[in-house]
Amino acid sequence: MKRLKKFLAIITILTIIGVSICGCAVSNKEEESFFYTTNPTEMISGEQQEVVEEKVTVPKYVFLFIGDGMGYPQLQTTCYSLGEDEKMPFMTFPFVGNMTTHNSESTITDSASAITAMLTGHKTSHGTLNMNEKGTKSYKTIAEYLRDELNYKIGVITTASLNHATPAGTYAHQNSRKNYYQIGKNLISSNFDFFAGGGFTDSKGKNGGNTSLYTLAKSKGYTIVKRTKQYEQLNSDTGKVIMLSENRVDEEYMPYDMDLDDDEWTLSDYVSKGIEMLDNENGFFMLVEGAKIDLCNHENDAATMIRETMALSDSVNKAIEFYNEHPDETLIIVTADHESGGLTVGYSLTKYETDLDVLLKQKISFSKFKTDYLERYKKGNITFEDILKDIKENYGFTPDEDETEQLKRAYIRSLQVGAMPSSELTKQEYINYGTYEPFSIVLSRIMNHRAGVDYTTYSHTGMPVPVYALGVGGEKFNGSYDNTDIFVKLCEIMELK
Amino acid sequence: MKRLKKFLAIITILTIIGVSICGCAVSNKEEESFFYTTNPTEMISGEQQEVVEEKVTVPKYVFLFIGDGMGYPQLQTTCYSLGEDEKMPFMTFPFVGNMTTHNSESTITDSASAITAMLTGHKTSHGTLNMNEKGTKSYKTIAEYLRDELNYKIGVITTASLNHATPAGTYAHQNSRKNYYQIGKNLISSNFDFFAGGGFTDSKGKNGGNTSLYTLAKSKGYTIVKRTKQYEQLNSDTGKVIMLSENRVDEEYMPYDMDLDDDEWTLSDYVSKGIEMLDNENGFFMLVEGAKIDLCNHENDAATMIRETMALSDSVNKAIEFYNEHPDETLIIVTADHESGGLTVGYSLTKYETDLDVLLKQKISFSKFKTDYLERYKKGNITFEDILKDIKENYGFTPDEDETEQLKRAYIRSLQVGAMPSSELTKQEYINYGTYEPFSIVLSRIMNHRAGVDYTTYSHTGMPVPVYALGVGGEKFNGSYDNTDIFVKLCEIMELK
Repeated sequence: MKRLKKFLAIITILTIIGVSICGCAVSNKEEESFFYTTNPTEMISGEQQEVVEEKVTVPKYVFLFIGDGMGYPQLQTTCYSLGEDEKMPFMTFPFVGNMTTHNSESTITDSASAITAMLTGHKTSHGTLNMNEKGTKSYKTIAEYLRDELNYKIGVITTASLNHATPAGTYAHQNSRKNYYQIGKNLISSNFDFFAGGGFTDSKGKNGGNTSLYTLAKSKGYTIVKRTKQYEQLNSDTGKVIMLSENRVDEEYMPYDMDLDDDEWTLSDYVSKGIEMLDNENGFFMLVEGAKIDLCNHENDAATMIRETMALSDSVNKAIEFYNEHPDETLIIVTADHESGGLTVGYSLTKYETDLDVLLKQKISFSKFKTDYLERYKKGNITFEDILKDIKENYGFTPDEDETEQLKRAYIRSLQVGAMPSSELTKQEYINYGTYEPFSIVLSRIMNHRAGVDYTTYSHTGMPVPVYALGVGGEKFNGSYDNTDIFVKLCEIMELK
Repeated sequence: MKRLKKFLAIITILTIIGVSICGCAVSNKEEESFFYTTNPTEMISGEQQEVVEEKVTVPKYVFLFIGDGMGYPQLQTTCYSLGEDEKMPFMTFPFVGNMTTHNSESTITDSASAITAMLTGHKTSHGTLNMNEKGTKSYKTIAEYLRDELNYKIGVITTASLNHATPAGTYAHQNSRKNYYQIGKNLISSNFDFFAGGGFTDSKGKNGGNTSLYTLAKSKGYTIVKRTKQYEQLNSDTGKVIMLSENRVDEEYMPYDMDLDDDEWTLSDYVSKGIEMLDNENGFFMLVEGAKIDLCNHENDAATMIRETMALSDSVNKAIEFYNEHPDETLIIVTADHESGGLTVGYSLTKYETDLDVLLKQKISFSKFKTDYLERYKKGNITFEDILKDIKENYGFTPDEDETEQLKRAYIRSLQVGAMPSSELTKQEYINYGTYEPFSIVLSRIMNHRAGVDYTTYSHTGMPVPVYALGVGGEKFNGSYDNTDIFVKLCEIMELK
């Protein structure tokens, strides 16, 4: 459930981070142990590494957190918005790597080929899931190996739909990430133990004429729960489970964290439940995706990105709590599949100044502003004065003359043509608005520029991403490597052939 | 000397990198040893780390390479321009860290406060060199400690002027980086053993009325050489030396690497000479700055940035060769003071495609195009057809209709007003041109967009930067930390109190 008001959520996170940062410096063992049994500095010392070597254990509990589109810029922007010396707890993990992300056809990957690289060790082309470029050869995923070779339970949690590219990377084998119905069938036949987050995109196929994936999943023994009040009834005796966020948006995604009602579950609630459901003597592997970090980067909505990144960090904290109970048996990896948007902390007009607090004042995502406000504006009977009030209420600022002029132009365009496919846009129109609602994208851009941040693209970029690791085998994630090495390293750690 | 034609230089680097990459995979010891005595994978294994621990030596030879403005985007763009799996040799170092760069007043640092943080462990304000924000307290630098406590020889090499912020970070204590004359006097009284690269900015003071810094340096026992033919006569018996690049540009900087004549010395030549001059029984500390990586990022000239980054990498190779002769006594660190420009591999119009080869076709820097071509255009008697020929010759492409239109508008503006201070520009003019020649900046931007890269600012950004380390104590540079930790880690490694 979303237990806290938005403002309180920020304060809480600040407090958690405060504890974590303090934990590294002070000798109060209770505070230190909030996140790790050993503090980060001690963990990379020789003694600690020797301990790891002596035990030579295969981690029984493996967490892989993926912030979709969560590169260095997203992390640093989030940290700096909280304070110059702040880090999210997972950013203090003792083992840190730097990972390249290109796929087999471009320096800029998509999410399907990126997750294929990480979970199978093979580069492939845009949109391909765990197959070669021609779709003639299938690659087995680390999740499938762990299911088959070590009898681990497998859990997949995402804020996107369950058959979206990144979660599908654990179980699907398709030449196109858009084969949602086939991917859904792959999910059902995976026999994985726990799925949670969004629903199924195209649950009855592209044309809506197929048997519902929910019906098929039930017939294969999955318990499906769609209501928050049913969630608590689930326990480790329930068997295979598919948990759906009660309210879903877009193509069956979870809502943005900042748009959730107070009684709705957050990503970290699903992770807690997943741990409870998956915990067993053989061990488990859990993939958790903060999918919508990517989506709001595409929309160049930095404020929502910060909140989504913090939500992923909150969910990692649940794994850290579990690690503290099982430090000798747990491995946690936090990384990204690619950077999205070409974000940076630095904009031409603001030069060496930033004011990232600005971004914390936004109360509603780009997407929800569009559906809850812009759609209403389009129905008429609204003055620009009313719109300015809504902006003040939801974005925390009153546009200056220059900004008002930009917003008015974009508003007229939104009323006249709205969001358009790129094929119908001139180059300059695409640069200005992408395929988004002109009014919304200009509003986000004004926010970004007020804060001193900027984006270069509505797509992904070729930037490397960080990897943070904690626990058994984590030291292998130090250094520079490629995304295909995630699979190689995991195979080594898990002693898979 | 600049021994190779530009094209050959690229090929050579490609070959060097090929050897390095192969070195990690094959068992041919001769190939492996080109860069390290042990390959990177072996170096991070437990055995290797135990060896390091057993020896517990203080490195006798310490190299600190700083790519000014060389963040993740600069490195990744350079690598991807060479090929998707290519890395510069130092990027395969076994120890890798991620470092925050904010200073005491902003998330976005300048170079003076950044080098102060790295060499003294203290955050300070924009423009301050090794002092507190008020200029009332002086901080001793790691170079000064090594000179005084361990009797190390100290060398400072830069492609900027010798009294520019980053080299000054080793020896100067000033409340403004612009106190060039006072900084020059600090250089002379540092008694450091070896300086090379550019000359002195404001060598006779701001108004030109003071005794030349060259004269003062000579009177304090420095041998000053300004001619390439004198360089070879220098040897370790020469005593304290200041070597100046024969041709200097701007404020006494070295020219850009791609603009050097074939017989001119490159940065790596100065590093070789520096090693020869500094090598002694007590040990040495050498700071090497690739200063103009920053400058061309300010100018949003990605093509020149690639060449400057490769030149710095070439110079690191000289240190790697030295490391191979003294693996148990050498520490090499390669890092940056900050990112510059908000560069990324990804631009809105090019979406998921890039064509970084485009950038390798540029034969002349933004700066030299301005002085050698644009200045001539301004004198008249030139048609736009002639200009297009010059662009084809120097940038390797013929602008399309849209680009020609942009160039013509910028050309007219360059003829009419030229480069302007920001105080005289409207917001939109500053976004379009910064304080640069409109024609040059638009030409660079067209190149960038053709390649699929983009910048967000003419200033620095708040992005973290990577740290690569090799050799004795290098393992301390794994992990996530702040730029002030460079000083702390170096003190620990050097056993300074």
